[in-house]
Amino acid sequence: MEKKVTVEELLEKAKKPAQDAMKLHPFYRGKVQVTPKCAIRDFNDFGIWYTPGVAEPCRDIAKDPEKVFEHTNKANFVAVASDGTRVLGLGDIGPLAGLPVMEGKALLFKYLGGVDAFPLMIDTKDPDEFIQAVKWASPTFGGINLEDISSPKCFYILDRLREELDIPVWHDDQQGTAAITLAGVINGLKIVGKKLNEVLFSIIGAGAANICLIRTLIKAGVPPRNIIAVDSKGILHPNRADIETLKEKNPYKYKIAMETNGEGREGDMAEAIRDTDVCIAASKPGPGTIKKEWVEKMNHPAVMFAEANPVPEIWPWEAKEAGVKVFGTGRSDFPNQVNNSLGFPGIFRGTLDVMAKTITDEMHIAAAYAIAEVAERKGLREDYIVPTMDDWEVFPYEATQVALKAIEQGIARKKMSRQEIYEKAEETIKSAREQAQAMMKYGFIKLP
Amino acid sequence: MEKKVTVEELLEKAKKPAQDAMKLHPFYRGKVQVTPKCAIRDFNDFGIWYTPGVAEPCRDIAKDPEKVFEHTNKANFVAVASDGTRVLGLGDIGPLAGLPVMEGKALLFKYLGGVDAFPLMIDTKDPDEFIQAVKWASPTFGGINLEDISSPKCFYILDRLREELDIPVWHDDQQGTAAITLAGVINGLKIVGKKLNEVLFSIIGAGAANICLIRTLIKAGVPPRNIIAVDSKGILHPNRADIETLKEKNPYKYKIAMETNGEGREGDMAEAIRDTDVCIAASKPGPGTIKKEWVEKMNHPAVMFAEANPVPEIWPWEAKEAGVKVFGTGRSDFPNQVNNSLGFPGIFRGTLDVMAKTITDEMHIAAAYAIAEVAERKGLREDYIVPTMDDWEVFPYEATQVALKAIEQGIARKKMSRQEIYEKAEETIKSAREQAQAMMKYGFIKLP
Repeated sequence: MEKKVTVEELLEKAKKPAQDAMKLHPFYRGKVQVTPKCAIRDFNDFGIWYTPGVAEPCRDIAKDPEKVFEHTNKANFVAVASDGTRVLGLGDIGPLAGLPVMEGKALLFKYLGGVDAFPLMIDTKDPDEFIQAVKWASPTFGGINLEDISSPKCFYILDRLREELDIPVWHDDQQGTAAITLAGVINGLKIVGKKLNEVLFSIIGAGAANICLIRTLIKAGVPPRNIIAVDSKGILHPNRADIETLKEKNPYKYKIAMETNGEGREGDMAEAIRDTDVCIAASKPGPGTIKKEWVEKMNHPAVMFAEANPVPEIWPWEAKEAGVKVFGTGRSDFPNQVNNSLGFPGIFRGTLDVMAKTITDEMHIAAAYAIAEVAERKGLREDYIVPTMDDWEVFPYEATQVALKAIEQGIARKKMSRQEIYEKAEETIKSAREQAQAMMKYGFIKLP
Repeated sequence: MEKKVTVEELLEKAKKPAQDAMKLHPFYRGKVQVTPKCAIRDFNDFGIWYTPGVAEPCRDIAKDPEKVFEHTNKANFVAVASDGTRVLGLGDIGPLAGLPVMEGKALLFKYLGGVDAFPLMIDTKDPDEFIQAVKWASPTFGGINLEDISSPKCFYILDRLREELDIPVWHDDQQGTAAITLAGVINGLKIVGKKLNEVLFSIIGAGAANICLIRTLIKAGVPPRNIIAVDSKGILHPNRADIETLKEKNPYKYKIAMETNGEGREGDMAEAIRDTDVCIAASKPGPGTIKKEWVEKMNHPAVMFAEANPVPEIWPWEAKEAGVKVFGTGRSDFPNQVNNSLGFPGIFRGTLDVMAKTITDEMHIAAAYAIAEVAERKGLREDYIVPTMDDWEVFPYEATQVALKAIEQGIARKKMSRQEIYEKAEETIKSAREQAQAMMKYGFIKLP
């Protein structure tokens, strides 16, 4: 069991990256740059890449729009689009202050997935205007990664953009978090010897991540009646006092209230957790958001994820003392980090490589199973149920499983074999990594 | 005098870059990529560039928005924004088919100016919607380069964006072309021994490039009465039959009709050219758009630029036979290429380095004088009045002159000395070039 630390120690520990960040951000002044992808042998090559030569590929695309995937980098450009209304734990800090996060995300996209992601900060808080902005900016991109947009408008934005664009649109705080959490649940249940379609779930918090997680669990085979969700006003059920308001203001939460919780349980968070086999919290930073005595009443051996940042809803040692067998958080300094970065780079790699028209729930569920499988191959333990960032083989494998699912579902523009997909993904990701390392080695990126 | 070639031979010659382009575009599938700008020593660095460390720079920007220039790459990000309504000589081919051009432009921006430009294709033809789209997408960028937008809406779009955004907005087809043309005029007049403020100009065509050129000439010291502009309906003057329509539909052209042409000359293109010292054409591809006998009636020794692509309005040898002393075109295979690529990379470099709030006409005029000066230092000749792409010292020098002008005009956020500006620009551009070469050398960009 991990060493106990105090809130003060943890917050102190979190200060180091913050201090480094304040030194290194102004040192580099940006985390991504735009560089050539094609050869420039001499100045005559500009006659190929620009006028007059470029006119011919332009004509070709004008005749057949699908050719844009052949003549440009559209197939590998992804917009990391955000209005900055819910950035990390900082809330609505706006598009300028959110830019460091989206640049960071673009960096992860390239280094882990070989994806040319570009931060696209949108200067409006109105959901319809946001949708319009992304649609107008979409011709350049082969995919859209929505990020850090407040709930519930993020659901509406995702739904409409998925419907109205013919490129994949993804909201990492929904689908990305759901994929990695599901991976943790799959392997956690293996450790405690229980089955996904038989266990009872308590879901703490009903924001973007958990609303998508509930849909994901159901599609992955969890009977809706086995899910008990609770928000700050109590357990979701059809007789809640605010049910009519929910119907109008947050139809996504309303749907959950109507369709889950087969036993019609009512009450508070303690009551929600009682007797469940799996508890997943994405709610208010702890400690003490979830009390030890509530967790003691779970159906042990239990699985629990407390994902609030910077401090989880309950300390790992408290959860363990309460009887939880498998426990994970959002922090890299505790075991079993539920880390989105294990998902989106591989998921987009596979999606882009077969030019899928969208990313279905089935695709991110395939990614969850792929992530779980990579950890299992390495040997599951209570404190190792998902891969770490060092297990980089997770990305090409995940890409392969996601791409095959897209082909199976008939939404891939390009058919490839399992081996072709894997080799292309591995080669692309490896090259992105080695290129970054070479730029450091040869001094184009200086060391601090 | 250059060897005579036929239209057929010229068009044949132009086929080679087109053929290469059709082979090499699908080989590379894109001309720019997004790569790291900061070091990634190990996976712990992601805790600095992304959560949890990144939160601190975000907070810093939330407190003081100007800090975004310190913590992100905003200061070096430029959007190459286009709706694809007037792409090269191809007309309105739309945003998808225009993407190869904007990617090519981004490549030039980086290789020649060290600027991280990103293609931003906008999917609307409505000028107000275009303006809205660019404004919504603007937080990421430190500058906007408008490109290949049809006239006259490009004037309205430029004017409004310059007014409503606090970052520099530039339309390369206007200001970029004006800058390099003015550079050619300055040096051309030195060769023929005439003065800018004394000569008579004929301007053939009244599209985006020439309308901005006329404003530029006037700001550079040419008396408005000494400019005679002509479009497809004849010379612009206050008594033209369509003057009221112009006032409403194209106020930019209307203004020219009202303010230039001091002698009130009326008539056709032949009449416009008669007795002028300098003739600048950006109109219909030739040959034969401008006839030899019209050019014979110029006030020789004369200076002439025929900028239509792919074939200039008149053949170089015809112009020479008619008595023109200094003749330039838009083609790289004739002498004196009027080439926008000599302008925008250096102009943006200087503008971004001192964080200027806009790019004034005075700044692009300073660039024109800088370009002219670099050619003069190398020794002017009838067939060498502007630098070629090999004279790369033009870019840092131009950047310096532009930045100093911005400081002088009080629109630079950052004050630097002449030497500091030059050294920073030279270092940035050199590093961009060497990095591109290194990526080829080490196989990250394969040779065809």
